[in-house]
Amino acid sequence: MKILHSSAKRDGFYLPAEFDRHYGCVMIFPERADSWQYGAINARRAFANVAGEIAKCERVTMLVSHREYQNARLILPPDIRVVEMSSDDAWARDVSPEWVINADGVMRGVSFGFNAWGGLYDGCYFPWDKDNAVSSKLCDLYDADMYDCEDFILEGGSISADGRGTLITTESCLLSPGRNPKLTKAQIEARLCDSLGIQKVIWLKDGIIGDETNGHTDNICVFCSPYEVLLAWEEDENSPQHAICRENLEILENALTADGHKLTVHKIPQPRPIYMTEEECGGLELYNGQPTRTPTEPLSASYVNLFIANDRVIMPFFGGENAENDMRARDILQKIFPDRKVVGIYARDILIGGGNIHCITHQIPAHNMPYIGG
Amino acid sequence: MKILHSSAKRDGFYLPAEFDRHYGCVMIFPERADSWQYGAINARRAFANVAGEIAKCERVTMLVSHREYQNARLILPPDIRVVEMSSDDAWARDVSPEWVINADGVMRGVSFGFNAWGGLYDGCYFPWDKDNAVSSKLCDLYDADMYDCEDFILEGGSISADGRGTLITTESCLLSPGRNPKLTKAQIEARLCDSLGIQKVIWLKDGIIGDETNGHTDNICVFCSPYEVLLAWEEDENSPQHAICRENLEILENALTADGHKLTVHKIPQPRPIYMTEEECGGLELYNGQPTRTPTEPLSASYVNLFIANDRVIMPFFGGENAENDMRARDILQKIFPDRKVVGIYARDILIGGGNIHCITHQIPAHNMPYIGG
Repeated sequence: MKILHSSAKRDGFYLPAEFDRHYGCVMIFPERADSWQYGAINARRAFANVAGEIAKCERVTMLVSHREYQNARLILPPDIRVVEMSSDDAWARDVSPEWVINADGVMRGVSFGFNAWGGLYDGCYFPWDKDNAVSSKLCDLYDADMYDCEDFILEGGSISADGRGTLITTESCLLSPGRNPKLTKAQIEARLCDSLGIQKVIWLKDGIIGDETNGHTDNICVFCSPYEVLLAWEEDENSPQHAICRENLEILENALTADGHKLTVHKIPQPRPIYMTEEECGGLELYNGQPTRTPTEPLSASYVNLFIANDRVIMPFFGGENAENDMRARDILQKIFPDRKVVGIYARDILIGGGNIHCITHQIPAHNMPYIGG
Repeated sequence: MKILHSSAKRDGFYLPAEFDRHYGCVMIFPERADSWQYGAINARRAFANVAGEIAKCERVTMLVSHREYQNARLILPPDIRVVEMSSDDAWARDVSPEWVINADGVMRGVSFGFNAWGGLYDGCYFPWDKDNAVSSKLCDLYDADMYDCEDFILEGGSISADGRGTLITTESCLLSPGRNPKLTKAQIEARLCDSLGIQKVIWLKDGIIGDETNGHTDNICVFCSPYEVLLAWEEDENSPQHAICRENLEILENALTADGHKLTVHKIPQPRPIYMTEEECGGLELYNGQPTRTPTEPLSASYVNLFIANDRVIMPFFGGENAENDMRARDILQKIFPDRKVVGIYARDILIGGGNIHCITHQIPAHNMPYIGG
């Protein structure tokens, strides 16, 4: 692995869209006892279900600590590759490199800094050094040269790309004092464009209320095809979430892509608010003597937090009083993705950890690299 | 990775020779403070030299702990892939799976048990659980299905194969009470044949005096081509090593390969005895309160402990009063390997750890697998 100090844009590389063809997908096995209740037993089952579904149409590599390697190997189907790698939690979306490609199909990784969604300002845990090392280790593992952008804090969940030069992000996250406080909005935009080969950034305001990531876009608005986005939509006009969704809708309706197109916005109705039970909270270890979850705070649930695999879309189901909403959201999504099968995975046990299916997955684009780890 | 409970032989798989074509090679970055003097600084340089030389003709993957990942990445050339994997020391030869292939070029791993060269009987360290897990993790990493032979203790350095059904090993190691004491010699031979697709085992008696592995064959006798072996040869008739070499020579001269051929034995003169200095010993941490090396014990040096790469042979040089012997051994080996360049690497700092170039490398045979980690 060569470490590069030029930039993707200068070298003719760009960030493909998630709906473009994948080589495969990376995930991380859940382990952290203050994120995943009761030894992560339910979370592991949910992660295994997601991995198994993705593995039907692309290669899945599951990263896992030495300590849990044998457990992961036992739980996961044989067609999933299990690879030892240290991390601080299980959010592959946010700790992986962004993979950029060029016209010849060469793939490189872009390694950004990771500080647990806000560092000492408002991050979720300390330390985060193992998480921060994942992106360079993955570039090495996949034999891809790496752009070193580790002086710039960026998580994969905070951006969504159309693969044609346009990126969506949120001000609430990227302008948070916990990310890159010394940079202006214009400087941050320039950095995004340079590091990822982007021409146009669409700035949404905020994300899902209660989202510990300062409002990642992947929980509220993502590209589903060129010129089309999914927008999480709170129908209850009395909810503060409604106002956030409406503001984002206006921005999207007035936005143009890098190549001058308007966007079609698909509203995906939000599930009813979901709370953890006392029993679920009781299965979490304390973090610095404090509980990480209480039954009074709603979880940041959203159907938009899905993974677009090669021939299917893996979406979260929440069950319970959302059982009907699950079906409704699936039917809407199935119309939006006519060429892919939309598959729901019961994901309450992922949501409890603070994210959802998109947060625990990271695609690797199709490419023409000769040597590549499966 | 599928875990298989049949056997290589039953499934039509066999162990290729080291002199057959390689896909690549695996090594482990040295770290252990009671094996490698002064923070392994010299050892790391020597390992990097070996890796760099092999990387000129085949893919090299260097395994390293999370703790030392950044160090390894910094020291090693960019064309070497650095992959996190926990281990207890740095002996890739002995902790890797044996890779078997079939006529279609499918590759599988055979994972044996590893107990640090003798377990609690006379092993070199405890615990060895991380080392023992390396072979299954490597099968997973390279997306190869794995034969589970972990109930049978076997190190890669204790066998040498001609790739045509014949295996050389030593009684001193394989019949040691620290390996598989409940099995008879006949049962051990049957297990070797079944697990590695072997038809014929040639049993040498003993290895190099002072070898902590109970006399691995890779330090005294290895195949260099079909029907030809290298035999470490102590010319001093007063040395007890001379008697061991002579006994092995007689066995080899009377042996037939699986296909009924006689062997040509190339005698490779031994270097003069090598001792550690007081200063070198002082750079080693104690193990359980005891020194692991003293300046009075000779190290188990041998020129036979070399690595046969695709277009070169990497052999140890010892320097000092062996400088002339180094040249002499190189010239002999260059005649034996007319199609490969013989390259000497100054390896005193590997020898100090208890092995040499063959012990720290493990080839992966050429194969036709579609997805493979570089």
